[in-house]
Order: sequence, then C-alpha cells, then structure tokens
Amino acid sequence: MITVLFAAPDRDWDEFSQALRDAFAAAELEVNLVGEADPLEVDYIVYAPTGWLKDFTPYTRLKGVQSLWAGVEKIVGNETLHAPLARMVDFGLREGMVEYCVGHVLRHHLGMDLDICRSDTNWAVHVPPLARDRSVTILGLGALGAAVAEALAALNFKVTGWSRRQKDLAGVRCLAGQEGLDEALRAGEIVVLLLPQTPETDNVLDAKRLALLPAGACIINPGRGPLIDDDALLAALGRGQVAHATLDVFRIEPLPKDHPFWAHPQVTVTPHIASDTRPASAARLVADNIGRSEAGLPMLHVVDRGAGY
Amino acid sequence: MITVLFAAPDRDWDEFSQALRDAFAAAELEVNLVGEADPLEVDYIVYAPTGWLKDFTPYTRLKGVQSLWAGVEKIVGNETLHAPLARMVDFGLREGMVEYCVGHVLRHHLGMDLDICRSDTNWAVHVPPLARDRSVTILGLGALGAAVAEALAALNFKVTGWSRRQKDLAGVRCLAGQEGLDEALRAGEIVVLLLPQTPETDNVLDAKRLALLPAGACIINPGRGPLIDDDALLAALGRGQVAHATLDVFRIEPLPKDHPFWAHPQVTVTPHIASDTRPASAARLVADNIGRSEAGLPMLHVVDRGAGY
Repeated sequence: MITVLFAAPDRDWDEFSQALRDAFAAAELEVNLVGEADPLEVDYIVYAPTGWLKDFTPYTRLKGVQSLWAGVEKIVGNETLHAPLARMVDFGLREGMVEYCVGHVLRHHLGMDLDICRSDTNWAVHVPPLARDRSVTILGLGALGAAVAEALAALNFKVTGWSRRQKDLAGVRCLAGQEGLDEALRAGEIVVLLLPQTPETDNVLDAKRLALLPAGACIINPGRGPLIDDDALLAALGRGQVAHATLDVFRIEPLPKDHPFWAHPQVTVTPHIASDTRPASAARLVADNIGRSEAGLPMLHVVDRGAGY
Repeated sequence: MITVLFAAPDRDWDEFSQALRDAFAAAELEVNLVGEADPLEVDYIVYAPTGWLKDFTPYTRLKGVQSLWAGVEKIVGNETLHAPLARMVDFGLREGMVEYCVGHVLRHHLGMDLDICRSDTNWAVHVPPLARDRSVTILGLGALGAAVAEALAALNFKVTGWSRRQKDLAGVRCLAGQEGLDEALRAGEIVVLLLPQTPETDNVLDAKRLALLPAGACIINPGRGPLIDDDALLAALGRGQVAHATLDVFRIEPLPKDHPFWAHPQVTVTPHIASDTRPASAARLVADNIGRSEAGLPMLHVVDRGAGY
C-alpha cells in the first residue's frame, strides 16, 4: 500500500480526490490517499503552494512530490525538500486554454457577435479580412501562451508574442523587455493575456498601455484578473479604443452582481472556464508519475532545482 | 496579345479588374482584359454565373473558361460550352472557409452564445469537454472540406469526413458511400456541410438523415443552400434533435425577410460570407491557368463535366 498525502486546500480535495482515486485504480496502484498522515508513513505528496505544508523535514521516507500547479516558483527554493519534485503538465489544461483562446480570437476576427445577436433581417455582408492580414498579440509565452500562439500561427494569424525573457517560437514574432511590450501592444488588433500573476504584471494593462492598442482592438483575458486595470479598461471601452473585452478572470470571483462588466454591451463575461483545472487529466499524470517511481523510473517533468524550473 | 473577356457583373469588375491586371503583369503575360469583345477574338473567359454570358457558341476560338466561383453547378450543364472549364480554387477562399468553419465549430463546442448573449448576472460555470472528446463530421472532402477537416483535427477534434469517393486524410476518419453517410451523421455532434451542389446532394440533409444526428447536434452550412431541406430542419430544431443551425447559404439570397430562419432563436444567419472569393489570390490562379494553357499545359482544377464538379 502506497501512502499519498494530499497537501493542498480543501477545495482542491473536493475537486481532485475522486479523480485521483479513479486514476490510481485505472493504473492498478494500491494507494491510500489521505489529507493528513504521520509524516513517517508518507511515500508521496500531492502539493499546492496554497496548502498548509511548508516544512518537508519530517517526511523522511518521501519518494517524490507532485505539484498540482504548473508553476513551482513557490516551492523550488524550499531547502527542506530533497525528494524529486515534478511540475504539473496537464494536457487538459493546455488544450482547454488553446480551444478557448482560438475560439474567441476567431469570434472577434470574424465579427461573429453581429450575426449571433442579430435581431433584424438585414443582409449586410461583412467579409472579414483573412487571418493572414490580422495581427494577434499574446502577452505571456509560458506553456499556455506558447501553445496558443502556435495554434494561432497555424491558422495563419500574424502572431506577436511577448514574454519577460526572450523566447523563440516557430511562426511567432517574439518580443521581450519594456520596449518589446509597447511594440507588442501597438500590433495587437486582438490581444490575449496569458501572463502569470506577479508584482510586475499587476495592472500591466493600465491606461497608458491600453492607449497603445490600435483603435478598435479586442482584449481576451483568460490569464489573471489583476493583469487589467478595470477602470482604465472601462474608459478605453467608452472611447472605442477597445471595441470589446472578453474576460474570464476577475479580481473578485464570482464577479459581483453589481460590477459594470456584467451589463456592458462591449464586455463578454465568461465564468472562469478557460483555464479550469481538468481533474481527470491532471490525476492521470499524478498516477503515471507514482507508478513510474514505484517501478524505479524517473518521474516525468521533474524540476531541475539548480535551474529553478 | 491574349484576349481575356471578363463575363461577370460590374461589381465583380470593380473588385477584380485591377487584381487581374496585376497578376497578369506579375506572370509576364501580355493580356488584353476586356469587359466586351468580338467573340471571334476571345481566347479566355473569366466567368461568373451572375453575369450576362449564357451562350458560348459564338466564341469559336475559346481556349478555356475560368470560373470565379468554386461552385460550378450553374455552368457545368451549359451545352454551348466545349472549352475546358476550371473551378476557382483560391487559397484566400480556402483560408477564409477554414477560419469560418473552425470559428463556428469552436463557438458551438465552447457554448459561447450563452455568454455572448447573456442578459443576467449568473456566474454559472459551464466547462465544455475537450475537443478530443467532441465529434465533428464534415460532409464533403473536396479542397475546402479537406482543409477544414485537417484544421479541426490539428485542434484535436475527433473528425469524421464523408465524401462520395473514398478519401484518405491524416487524422480524419474518412467514410464514403451510403452506409458511410449514415455513420458519419450518427457521429456528428457538430456537422459541417461542404458538399458541392449536384442532383445527388439536393436535400441531402432531409428529415430521415436529420433524425440520425445525435440529440442536440449543431449544423453549420457554409456550402450550398439546397443541401438542407429547410422544413425538415425547422422541425428538427423544434424537437431539439438539432440544437442550433448556423447557416451561411440559402435557396434564395439574400434570405427573404419573412423567412423563419431570421427570427429563429436556434438559427444564426450569416450573409454568405464564408466562401467569399479574395481578388488578389483568385487573380493569381487566373493568371497561372492562362499561363499554363498558353504553355500547352492543362489548366488546374478543370471540371469533370460528367461528374458535375
């Protein structure tokens, strides 16, 4: 019997515990999945940095830690952890994000809302340009941003990507640094926000940067609520600088019922569905990794502690 | 000097004449492009069925006809035409069609309308399945259907394609024949119609075949209006067999103002925008084809008059 300690908040337990049990059963692993345990009996830890576990010292028989998060910056420097640490690389999260972003980029590109919400009988032909003549900017080129950028490039969009550190992606104009950010925004007829939430990215789309966008730009934010200065966005929508914003994440969720985004004709609210954790596919990786470790194989996506990721 | 007669409506002349002259110049062809000419002097005809030309008999030295349209059903039966007839296969047309179809498939897949048309403040989380768990059926695997099928397969959709003759496309389950059609329809949570208009495809989606679709299927028709039996579709929408239809083409265009499709809450009307021909890229094919013919090579995309397309 393998003891797996689930060291993450209660809401993660509600979401993942059954999926994990199903995945362990499917992988024919005899696992005791617990929310608390004597540290001396724990073989593996499923970990989220929002949970209670900070000190790994008592877990003397620990064989591995599987992060539920793709980002490991909050644990990689933890000097009490000596067991292998694996990042979450969930194909379900990546694929769901690509589908959401490509879908909403095409929606804005094609001007679909005009036809979807039509209440008249006006045969007004509005042929959109080809994707090859449409500039889309992706802010953030991590695993998700890079996957979205490449999917859009495969559909012939002119894709500009921006990231803090210079990246190199086939078919994508990659920019970095402060000047690069300004240039990326100037190019963005449609802008997709997939930056991580850090002190530097808080309000990254403020009034000054919104003013750099081409007139009539569309914004899609499936990243993090605090990336946008809400009041500045409302002002930019009001003067037409931004034609439409499709927002999936907010500073407070669920979005309060009195928030002006709900009723705004130029704002589409989606209820945090783009980056929804896919428990089933994430649980499959956890089970795979524990199975590999038990079979004497290295876990997948193990963090290089020296490099920091 | 080659004489090319442009036999299409005046608005097409306004849209295409400069693009054609540019393409002829780029191909180093000495062409006299004219809107009217002595039939005895005409080498090639650029043709649209909405133009004035019906009788090809006087054009005794005609070497070829290049249709501006992908669909040739209105000219293929013209018994006065003996010269080779080439269909329009325009990369702009293909790309525009891929963008329209992928966009609307993702729209239905993601259930976007719920958020786009929302008038309440209800944070109701509706996470769609992944594309890998969504079956999409493409009827018609010609140049356009194949491109759409491959783009959807690249986004991980489970794609079934049906064509009269068996095809073989990477990542696409290709079916053919009458039994294949039934099976393709049974698999189609989202069905895209890209069949040519022929006597065999008239009303191909009739009441019997609509009944084969999974309950709650969505239909996207950017192909030809007569592919669908309109009354049978309205009945299938009424009983929920079909959840939504997005229609770009109709038996009569513009769609008459009293047609029930306009106001139907489960129907989205787009005004024949999916397959619009793009002058610059279309003109390049016209110049290519005239250049080939002048060099003694067969034109590209010549219609098989027996098959009808």
